[in-house]
Amino acid sequence: MEKLVKLYNKKEKLIIGLMSGTSLDGIDAALVRVKNSGLDTEIELIGFETFPYTSEERNEINKACSVSESNVELICQLNFYLGKKFGEAAISIAKKCNIKLDRIDLVGSHGQTIYHIPQNSTLQIGEPSVIKEMTGITTVADFRVMDVAAGGHGAPLVPYTEYLLYRNSEKTIALQNIGGIGNVTILPKMCNVSDVIAFDTGPGNMMIDTCIEIMTDGEKNYDENGIIASKGKLNSELLDELMSIPIIKAKPPKTTGREQFGKDFTVKMINKYREKGVTFEDIVNTFTRFTVKSIAYNYNLYLKDLVIDEVVVSGGGSYNPIIMQMLKEELYYTKVFTQEEKGYRSDAKEAIAFAILANESISGNLNNLPLVTGAKKAVILGKIIP
Amino acid sequence: MEKLVKLYNKKEKLIIGLMSGTSLDGIDAALVRVKNSGLDTEIELIGFETFPYTSEERNEINKACSVSESNVELICQLNFYLGKKFGEAAISIAKKCNIKLDRIDLVGSHGQTIYHIPQNSTLQIGEPSVIKEMTGITTVADFRVMDVAAGGHGAPLVPYTEYLLYRNSEKTIALQNIGGIGNVTILPKMCNVSDVIAFDTGPGNMMIDTCIEIMTDGEKNYDENGIIASKGKLNSELLDELMSIPIIKAKPPKTTGREQFGKDFTVKMINKYREKGVTFEDIVNTFTRFTVKSIAYNYNLYLKDLVIDEVVVSGGGSYNPIIMQMLKEELYYTKVFTQEEKGYRSDAKEAIAFAILANESISGNLNNLPLVTGAKKAVILGKIIP
Repeated sequence: MEKLVKLYNKKEKLIIGLMSGTSLDGIDAALVRVKNSGLDTEIELIGFETFPYTSEERNEINKACSVSESNVELICQLNFYLGKKFGEAAISIAKKCNIKLDRIDLVGSHGQTIYHIPQNSTLQIGEPSVIKEMTGITTVADFRVMDVAAGGHGAPLVPYTEYLLYRNSEKTIALQNIGGIGNVTILPKMCNVSDVIAFDTGPGNMMIDTCIEIMTDGEKNYDENGIIASKGKLNSELLDELMSIPIIKAKPPKTTGREQFGKDFTVKMINKYREKGVTFEDIVNTFTRFTVKSIAYNYNLYLKDLVIDEVVVSGGGSYNPIIMQMLKEELYYTKVFTQEEKGYRSDAKEAIAFAILANESISGNLNNLPLVTGAKKAVILGKIIP
Repeated sequence: MEKLVKLYNKKEKLIIGLMSGTSLDGIDAALVRVKNSGLDTEIELIGFETFPYTSEERNEINKACSVSESNVELICQLNFYLGKKFGEAAISIAKKCNIKLDRIDLVGSHGQTIYHIPQNSTLQIGEPSVIKEMTGITTVADFRVMDVAAGGHGAPLVPYTEYLLYRNSEKTIALQNIGGIGNVTILPKMCNVSDVIAFDTGPGNMMIDTCIEIMTDGEKNYDENGIIASKGKLNSELLDELMSIPIIKAKPPKTTGREQFGKDFTVKMINKYREKGVTFEDIVNTFTRFTVKSIAYNYNLYLKDLVIDEVVVSGGGSYNPIIMQMLKEELYYTKVFTQEEKGYRSDAKEAIAFAILANESISGNLNNLPLVTGAKKAVILGKIIP
């Protein structure tokens, strides 16, 4: 407890943020210097790395996510196994930055979501007690459950940190992330905490990645540089079918995930259109267009009262030139940048966010956005492993 | 954080302990006044109640425990559902004691174990964020994972609290619990923390209960007053087969559970001996003798260097006169009491233990017993939901 109080009183901390997203690429680890908390938060990224999952690990996680393939033994063991992987990622990023573990104040770990039923329940694994035990560092983890317990969707959580870091007095900014899922945070000009808008726009790269994996028999797992999409053409019937999925047109706040756009659904769609003679290239092109179109659709319908000055794109999708080109076409009325073009690292964003959220939890700050997650009230997220 | 510090500095606390064991009877809730911490701990039980599971709830939990029937969706939802049940139990016990929730300082919740692989991983559900959200009370939960993360079996955890409460300068005491599983804590005369011995002796009532359930087609779920056992006689072949299970004769420290003596195994044994023409009554009698014999065997083999002055029996098994009679036969060389005969409530013991463990965690005290759990070191158990 003395240690927690010391931590609470410390104005400048070294914090490791750990994140693994629905895309199952691997564990993102960011080592961040965080000064102050709340609106006074200042950060400096010291180091970042993604520790990729092996294909075997990815298979195990996919199994754990699947209603038909998962079981309690797998989940019990994988929780501890991933805890060890998260712990190793924390140790490695510290080493890479030449900072001894005992100088690091805090770990904030998101864990790996294996199931998520908005406003009902959510399940992240990657046991934080293992991280604490391996590193000796006080760990805050399991952020989503408290928001769901308070009636929220448990997502998105990153917008609160974007609000702390990126709010601007002169511009209205849309921060569009394209990871496994697509999600946007709108920071209106001179916004305060209750003005922030954020929601999931639809799939990010998830459906594209699955199609590439099937097409290449597991040799590749994403459309590098959008090359496959660029070889295909749009299939309007498929696009119309996808755009008619209710969540795409649902009013924000809304969240979606693997349960909607995961392997089960994607394979069904691929099989259906392959049987109609549609090429893999056309399917990838159409999935890519779907990702972009679902973003644009939501901007046009639900953000039309705002003048968006800038769209800043982050996540794996920002490295896909076809996605960026399509986005510029669809959002012709505003400026579209990648996060890199704005001078920020795109890949580190979520890991940094969980370092900041851990700092907020330890500081006793309410760190969900009820208007964004749908929670009945603001709460302190996370569990502290002392 | 201010709230945590206040809690840390408070010498006398009102704490609710919540526990649900492998027997799946229901949720035990104890409201306890706890003064001080560590060896100075003093407790007063204000109220206790068991909130029974419905048979539907029991079925769902059994499903979640089963490798063949469980899946990630069930576990995700049940974690939140049981969190709500635990929260309701906390609210009910406070109400029953006429104490307003805002006067209660802390909740310590064990949750419901659904899987346990000693020294590898363990999984408790009953989301503590939901308890915190429903009650507004700071909650400490998920005690077992940290011991497993430190290389331990994650069990037993109650002996540390028994050491705090029952150590005696004049007598060597064996505290034998007969719940779903049988486990014993030995507090040698004038012991200090590293002298405590504790381990699982074998099954408690788990196999007997399963047999009664099958025999009565689900109408009863335990052998009330040992009546069925008293109608049967011993089957030596069955007893020999059971006594030859390696865990029975394994050297302590050791833990066992549903994975060994649960439904899968018990049904297999019942079917095998029913086919040989053995009656249900004989099987129940033999399962009862097995529970007692496995206790006696371990005392005789592994505690022979200690003079045990008293055996104090708690848990559901202490209410079964056949178990008590058989225990007195097998342990003829010492005195055998029920916990009630010694003036303590037997049924509240484990719920009280988790109230004390939560107090120790908040106080920053190391609260596992490495020599008992097999952990590499003493750690602070539990996660704090602030």
